[in-house]
Amino acid sequence: MSTNWSSHFAARTGRMSASAIRELLKITARPEVISFAGGLPAAETFPVEAIQAACERILSTNAHVALQYAPTEGYMPLREQIAAMYRARGVPATVDNVMITTGSQQGLDLLGRTLIDEGDLILTEAPTYVGALQAWRPLAPHFASVPTDHDGMQIDQIETSLPIKLLYLLPNFQNPAGITLCAERRQEAVALAHRHKFLLIEDDPYRALRYSGQDIPALVEIEAQMLGADWNAAGRIIHLGTFSKVMAPGLRIGWMLAPTEAIRMASLAKQGADLHSSTLTQCIAVELLANGVVDANLPKLVSLYRERRDTMIQSLETFVGDCATWTHPAGGLFIWLTLLCGLNTTSLMREALKKNVAFVSGDSFFFDGRGADSMRLNFSCMPPDKIREGVRRLGEVISEQQQLHPVAAQ
Amino acid sequence: MSTNWSSHFAARTGRMSASAIRELLKITARPEVISFAGGLPAAETFPVEAIQAACERILSTNAHVALQYAPTEGYMPLREQIAAMYRARGVPATVDNVMITTGSQQGLDLLGRTLIDEGDLILTEAPTYVGALQAWRPLAPHFASVPTDHDGMQIDQIETSLPIKLLYLLPNFQNPAGITLCAERRQEAVALAHRHKFLLIEDDPYRALRYSGQDIPALVEIEAQMLGADWNAAGRIIHLGTFSKVMAPGLRIGWMLAPTEAIRMASLAKQGADLHSSTLTQCIAVELLANGVVDANLPKLVSLYRERRDTMIQSLETFVGDCATWTHPAGGLFIWLTLLCGLNTTSLMREALKKNVAFVSGDSFFFDGRGADSMRLNFSCMPPDKIREGVRRLGEVISEQQQLHPVAAQ
Repeated sequence: MSTNWSSHFAARTGRMSASAIRELLKITARPEVISFAGGLPAAETFPVEAIQAACERILSTNAHVALQYAPTEGYMPLREQIAAMYRARGVPATVDNVMITTGSQQGLDLLGRTLIDEGDLILTEAPTYVGALQAWRPLAPHFASVPTDHDGMQIDQIETSLPIKLLYLLPNFQNPAGITLCAERRQEAVALAHRHKFLLIEDDPYRALRYSGQDIPALVEIEAQMLGADWNAAGRIIHLGTFSKVMAPGLRIGWMLAPTEAIRMASLAKQGADLHSSTLTQCIAVELLANGVVDANLPKLVSLYRERRDTMIQSLETFVGDCATWTHPAGGLFIWLTLLCGLNTTSLMREALKKNVAFVSGDSFFFDGRGADSMRLNFSCMPPDKIREGVRRLGEVISEQQQLHPVAAQ
Repeated sequence: MSTNWSSHFAARTGRMSASAIRELLKITARPEVISFAGGLPAAETFPVEAIQAACERILSTNAHVALQYAPTEGYMPLREQIAAMYRARGVPATVDNVMITTGSQQGLDLLGRTLIDEGDLILTEAPTYVGALQAWRPLAPHFASVPTDHDGMQIDQIETSLPIKLLYLLPNFQNPAGITLCAERRQEAVALAHRHKFLLIEDDPYRALRYSGQDIPALVEIEAQMLGADWNAAGRIIHLGTFSKVMAPGLRIGWMLAPTEAIRMASLAKQGADLHSSTLTQCIAVELLANGVVDANLPKLVSLYRERRDTMIQSLETFVGDCATWTHPAGGLFIWLTLLCGLNTTSLMREALKKNVAFVSGDSFFFDGRGADSMRLNFSCMPPDKIREGVRRLGEVISEQQQLHPVAAQ
């Protein structure tokens, strides 16, 4: 007799849903597909030789540490380097304010476990990062959003949603929309969190990948400036970072920067979650930082991605033109495209795949079914000629579908 | 004004507790301490050169894969090798029955998320693995146990606890007690799970570390033999394995072997938890398996640990003698010692630390406060002379405390 698994699964599994992206990645792995669906860094940017040299050094001098169990909070030299990175930006951080996570996705998960009760109200951008929705939905919070424009979330709209448990923001070149929260609104968001005593999760994987405009201080840096030496006691921002975009995602090394109380509780949760993140890949991150590999590699990364962003925007102008609008990100990996013709991007996706071009339909990035007229386009992992050809096919699919479905397209 | 974190933490954090062991590891890191507290493999057994060679090969031929994002379920060649390992033992497993986890601790966590609702009854050995308690307590299940003897859990006592949601077992050289479930009881446990339709989690990190006696088939192998080709449809055992003890824990590579339905749901949970485990360390595991490094390294590991186990048992006979009884594990990393004199091992621990010797007090391994007369002793990570000296000091502490507290010791 077959095992009836559905009778054994916990109730919360009813709120677990597959990431459209991770499912799509399986389809789009076929080499003939031009995929704008993933969010992969370009593999040719990985600092392979530096990682090779790092492995050699680590395994010949420090293998008994690099291969052994490690503290849950992370490998001490790495925590120290990350704390120093933020101290240089004005946050009075010590190692006790830093925890290493298995990618910043684990940061989101641990924050869910330690902060979110059923029914808590979480305010997000809309669209927002699908991985946060995946991490938190099983905990049964309520989600709400405030409108967004080209300067990011309209922070002055937050007060209509209060009280909230926490505000979740991706301030730089947001995944999926590519927009950036302007400096003034960052100030306002920090002030609001303190005035109304909610928590603020700042998820910041892309900051270093800026291709135009000026770097803007992180929300946690603004808060630290405001609080000074009181930051550890009075701070209410939890900041997530990662080396996935500036070193390599396969290392799975991210971090959480926060007041010690928040770190202490997240670390308790991490003990049960995976004991600790890979010691070896933490040691590799230490070596790369110590040898300035990230800074040395960044200009190459930025110029490569800038070219790809520009190619995609030019191709959209050429091949998609009047049928849609799209964002013009100053950095990051994504452009957000909204169709003006009423076509549904989930249906469109099926047609696009027939032409071997892929994207992610917009509804994945909303908690409430919106986004059916939009799509996320990744420009980081395809060379310019493929970007051009892929956007050409995309334009073709949109035109064809508009002609086939004139009602929807009115 | 200070942030009142306790007002922000989720209710489930009230059920999170620090692992006594992981907290203790911080104290016992001082070089003068002879620690029997951890569960660390001996670093001198790590196949460092093979890992060095693996890194070189991987990074020179496959870096674009090894450093990139990977499927949540794991790196396909590794899943294939693990499936083949179980096929060789009679389980008709395919890659779809295998998911890679960030250590087997993550397997426990993902099973909690996908299987355990508040109030579900989980039956465990007592004492049991503290990491399972840590992973599952926040989900608010009920725990119960049945008595254990030198052949492991008394399976015939399970029926008095029915109905249960799941049975959790560490069949080989159990952490912390060092006992092994005999073949007959394994058969009974599998039969019971099927008769009464509960799930069975088999947590098996130590099987390869056997120093005496004969290898016994895993419960999942017994189940596969019983079900034949129906195993994937009718199986109800979820089996957890790890390379932490036979390669190196710093890689953080474990796995889950189960019917596809259970894998599918656990993989959904893993998407939200950490996207995937380190690609690089998965690639290292593939290389080590493909080159037979685990099998080649095992005899060295076994003879080293056998000597240490024997040294600890001899030292206990010499220096602790009549004050206590202890288990005689046929493998693994731990001996369980029970004092006959009524002393409390948590208090004893404080005195032992003054003499620079450490262990874990027994109550950590119970969900109900039992175990105050017991302790877990690890023998794998100290050389024989330190084991002897550490046990000598332990015997001294016990004698002194017996004289100081004759009432407790009556």
